[in-house]
Amino acid sequence: MKTLMVAQSGGPTAAINATLAGVIDAAQKSPLIDRIYGSRHGIEGVLHEMFVDLTHFSETEKLKATPAMALGSCRFKLPSEWDNSVYQRIADVFSRYNVGFFVYIGGNDSMDTVKKLAAFFQGKDDAPIIVGAPKTIDNDLPGVDHTPGFGSAARYLTLTMEELCRDLSIYAVKSVTIVEIMGRDAGWLTLAAGLPRFLGGAKPDIIALPEVPFDPEEMLRTIRRLHQTQNGLVIAVSEGIKDKDGNYIGASAQSGAMDQFGHSYLAGAGKYLEHLVKDRIGCKVRSIEISLMQRCSGLLASATDLNESFALGSFAVSLACQGEQGKMAGIRRLQNHPYRTELFPLDVKDCANQTRYVPERWWDLDSPSVRREICDYLLPLIAGEAPRFYRENGLPDYVIFD
Amino acid sequence: MKTLMVAQSGGPTAAINATLAGVIDAAQKSPLIDRIYGSRHGIEGVLHEMFVDLTHFSETEKLKATPAMALGSCRFKLPSEWDNSVYQRIADVFSRYNVGFFVYIGGNDSMDTVKKLAAFFQGKDDAPIIVGAPKTIDNDLPGVDHTPGFGSAARYLTLTMEELCRDLSIYAVKSVTIVEIMGRDAGWLTLAAGLPRFLGGAKPDIIALPEVPFDPEEMLRTIRRLHQTQNGLVIAVSEGIKDKDGNYIGASAQSGAMDQFGHSYLAGAGKYLEHLVKDRIGCKVRSIEISLMQRCSGLLASATDLNESFALGSFAVSLACQGEQGKMAGIRRLQNHPYRTELFPLDVKDCANQTRYVPERWWDLDSPSVRREICDYLLPLIAGEAPRFYRENGLPDYVIFD
Repeated sequence: MKTLMVAQSGGPTAAINATLAGVIDAAQKSPLIDRIYGSRHGIEGVLHEMFVDLTHFSETEKLKATPAMALGSCRFKLPSEWDNSVYQRIADVFSRYNVGFFVYIGGNDSMDTVKKLAAFFQGKDDAPIIVGAPKTIDNDLPGVDHTPGFGSAARYLTLTMEELCRDLSIYAVKSVTIVEIMGRDAGWLTLAAGLPRFLGGAKPDIIALPEVPFDPEEMLRTIRRLHQTQNGLVIAVSEGIKDKDGNYIGASAQSGAMDQFGHSYLAGAGKYLEHLVKDRIGCKVRSIEISLMQRCSGLLASATDLNESFALGSFAVSLACQGEQGKMAGIRRLQNHPYRTELFPLDVKDCANQTRYVPERWWDLDSPSVRREICDYLLPLIAGEAPRFYRENGLPDYVIFD
Repeated sequence: MKTLMVAQSGGPTAAINATLAGVIDAAQKSPLIDRIYGSRHGIEGVLHEMFVDLTHFSETEKLKATPAMALGSCRFKLPSEWDNSVYQRIADVFSRYNVGFFVYIGGNDSMDTVKKLAAFFQGKDDAPIIVGAPKTIDNDLPGVDHTPGFGSAARYLTLTMEELCRDLSIYAVKSVTIVEIMGRDAGWLTLAAGLPRFLGGAKPDIIALPEVPFDPEEMLRTIRRLHQTQNGLVIAVSEGIKDKDGNYIGASAQSGAMDQFGHSYLAGAGKYLEHLVKDRIGCKVRSIEISLMQRCSGLLASATDLNESFALGSFAVSLACQGEQGKMAGIRRLQNHPYRTELFPLDVKDCANQTRYVPERWWDLDSPSVRREICDYLLPLIAGEAPRFYRENGLPDYVIFD
């Protein structure tokens, strides 16, 4: 009998605790595991022996619906040299706590940690098995159909875009509202914000992915054309939109202007375009940054996402118990109607430090067949209201490890 | 038998359609009313005869849960001179459509329209009865305990602040996050964002109302002190915070710097404080503007708010049917434990164009008795999940008048 240790890393999502809940649930049921430790703040908690004993944890359903990271996160990059004392320190701690299985839940960078640890322990006697469980709202891990956390962030963005478009529909005046969405490299989240349009609605009027070169002049022409027949226009842009030369839109503003502290003016893409529209078109204009809310809302999370994230956590434990050193639990789509998936192991080497972009065949967002494909892809992922837990005073009830 | 006409005005809220639903429901049941018209875009719809026939409207429950404004809004100020042709135009249209009752749902400015129309028709033969039903997320109408729409915006802010604080708790690094909240003059919404702290939580660490002079140097001192024992600090600020001389915080930034278009740098309070913290403390810092999402979220609306807003709409119809010219439907609190209220008529002259501030006895937000009073005041207003309607594809199902 061995100890299973689990940790979380990277940015928070609405679903990473669902994966933790799945890990705990499977570990509690495994005949190979007699103790479960959660490491606080990712791999740093291993180095500093900051552990939570989860062996008898019982609030699985509430943990599944708790957003952010119950164990805390870190941004710690393991060194590339195997003789570094960090690895020996980890091996010593694992040995002292009888750790036979280590599950790391995280995104691209965290899978780099899994890759390095697995390589370090590979072939060593009685070595712990290191596996990864993915998470990232950006949905940009290669080799899988989608990533845990993405469905909930996508649901938040789709619903929020619907509500914003309702809000902005009420005035009979010409206006432009620019909504800036996370995803610096990959446009998956921006696609989710565009879903109301792909489903046949009028809004958002313009959708700009980071993969597709963005031409501000063309945006201005489109605004002028649409304003001939419509009032409140809504534009969904990725924070990472770039011009045809690959420069971030807004980057020139960043280097150009200074604020009163002498800082360069850190305009995001949305703020930059707001000023551009104000200057060149002169209508009422506003930019909205959805900011952190899109990544951490448990109240608008996708039930599908939480259920799949839970299942992936459990699957990661079964991979570990089978001795699958350096594997990551992945999800593969079998069909859309009805939506069916299966879980499978990936070699973590094949997805660490890489980015999966919106495929080029989807860049023509006005094409009916592309829209159909995008809806087929996204709709199952945002499906279903997640359960919500409230305290007696009406505030959300979370699992918090003191 | 007469026609009842109803219109909406001002900014959207999650509850203004609940009031419209209450108006329609009561009008359908009234023996004095045989026809119900909704005027599009407020009083402008009357001037241009843009009406929706709501006589046989049947989606009351769905309308109650539809955010924003189903009839559309306007920002039209009636002239102050009675001999203006606008009044005669309104009287002609009302006469042509046999309008005996006119219900205007809106905020402070809209009650000015009710006041003027009621004064115009006062004492005239067979004149329509003009009444108001309040709405404003700002909660700043005098004479009432609270306003429809506030409870839902407050619930959105309380829940979003809880989720943001969870999100921001995961890293073991010193940081400051500034959350900017609506309410340029009155701090009711900022109180709602502070509710997790008033209930005994640690966050948000600093809460800044527009009524209380704000000292940026004191904020910096507090941040330095708290950072000695804590990591991620969260600051909730009203968009309308001012210094001791009454100047908006960030206004100097607005007049000082120029962006690359030659515009003055339109920093809000949050962005201004972000730069100040970056410059003077140098830790990781971010500002988040909750923006329009706080006013228009039906998915996180308060059930209490929607139910009360519905009841106020119905009560406004009963006031109109009783010939209560120039009255507004108001809500008064009878007790807190359990929460009980009653509806009553106000003279619209007593609340139009006035602002109700957070009372000075509540400015000491660290006082336990003040915190208890604020919780007693706010908790009933944000209580309860509102019903949510979804289409088959998972997107929200709204009432939309084509």
